[in-house]
Amino acid sequence: MSESVGTRAVVLLSGGLYSSTCAAMAAAAGREIYALSIDYGQRHAIELEAARRVAAALHAREHKILKLDLRLFGGSALTDDIATPKNRAVESATDIPVTYVPARNTVMLSLALAYAETRSAYEIHIGVNAVDYSGYPDCRPEFVAAFERLAKLATKAGVEGADFRIHTPLLHLSKAEIISTGMKLGFDYGLTHSCYDPTPEGLSCGHCDSCLLRLKGFAEAGYRDPLRYV
Amino acid sequence: MSESVGTRAVVLLSGGLYSSTCAAMAAAAGREIYALSIDYGQRHAIELEAARRVAAALHAREHKILKLDLRLFGGSALTDDIATPKNRAVESATDIPVTYVPARNTVMLSLALAYAETRSAYEIHIGVNAVDYSGYPDCRPEFVAAFERLAKLATKAGVEGADFRIHTPLLHLSKAEIISTGMKLGFDYGLTHSCYDPTPEGLSCGHCDSCLLRLKGFAEAGYRDPLRYV
Repeated sequence: MSESVGTRAVVLLSGGLYSSTCAAMAAAAGREIYALSIDYGQRHAIELEAARRVAAALHAREHKILKLDLRLFGGSALTDDIATPKNRAVESATDIPVTYVPARNTVMLSLALAYAETRSAYEIHIGVNAVDYSGYPDCRPEFVAAFERLAKLATKAGVEGADFRIHTPLLHLSKAEIISTGMKLGFDYGLTHSCYDPTPEGLSCGHCDSCLLRLKGFAEAGYRDPLRYV
Repeated sequence: MSESVGTRAVVLLSGGLYSSTCAAMAAAAGREIYALSIDYGQRHAIELEAARRVAAALHAREHKILKLDLRLFGGSALTDDIATPKNRAVESATDIPVTYVPARNTVMLSLALAYAETRSAYEIHIGVNAVDYSGYPDCRPEFVAAFERLAKLATKAGVEGADFRIHTPLLHLSKAEIISTGMKLGFDYGLTHSCYDPTPEGLSCGHCDSCLLRLKGFAEAGYRDPLRYV
């Protein structure tokens, strides 16, 4: 047993592939999970249902869903009324995509930090990835390191000696490696959700950027995606 | 006229004494003001009304009020059901008070950063103060500097060369100096609100920490507080 077993960890959990794998890895490492989902005005409440399923399956100690309607600012396809691109060449998705949400990871980590401090949890786990999301500035290791420095200065707990750590176990993994990691831990990806444009019944479209990248990841990992597609 | 006239600035505006003075200073310096108020589940919607009055009086280009219910986490008298202290010796308020909100300034600056990026505004003005609030870790200059470094790394605009600056014009001023600054700019402090425990009609109690510190500040500055007290 690792000395980290039972350590409290806030895990940012959207219900998607990456954050769910990150949560599964924290659970496998024995962390006591305080899951935090941000309902930031994205289109799909279906993703929050996925987060609830994943938190329950991983026996999270708590699961908080915080409403934060960033549509007030606009500026992204996921929060604004820009059409979701369909059937784009997957390779083009490595530019800064229209789905970029301004300062999203900064906002999410800040909220996770507030939650962590109230629970005396000094680990924050976030499923950011610097490979597939090379176009997102707030998925880079230097961003994560800067936030970790900030967290120590920003909080009462930090001033009193707590060492806040931001865990990014997926940072340098490919999507196929991420999926393989979760599968080997026995995690059920049928609980997760990725599609930007699901049917009202929750079926995935199979054609948006997110579905295309997900299916490509499962194919490369050599597994069958347990999700139901249209 | 300064070269900064017309420069866009996001100003965090609670409607209290400090943030309102900060906004008045930005207006006096010719900034185009994008005011942002966070309705973070605090007890007093009256403070948001004050923010609306101040934003209007300073001719803000926009005023956004973002709901963020941090009561979900608990952990502070302003967001939780802890009684507001009354008639404490004002000096004792320099400890980390029960009104400390975990990671509040980190959360507020992150949201301001998201707003700023969508408006191509590269200044964020915040009325933090390291004198009266020496007990708050996120009112220290080193915290502000760390956030500024983070902002450059966290955003698309930062990666593309924008130089985000966090302006903290009140950082080293006493409350009396802050009030004097605003008064000399002709700012009407009757628009603001400070009381933790106002009457339903919006009158200030005169006895909570916030009222006591405010009245002490006006007395030391040699001005009469234009607010109405019980």
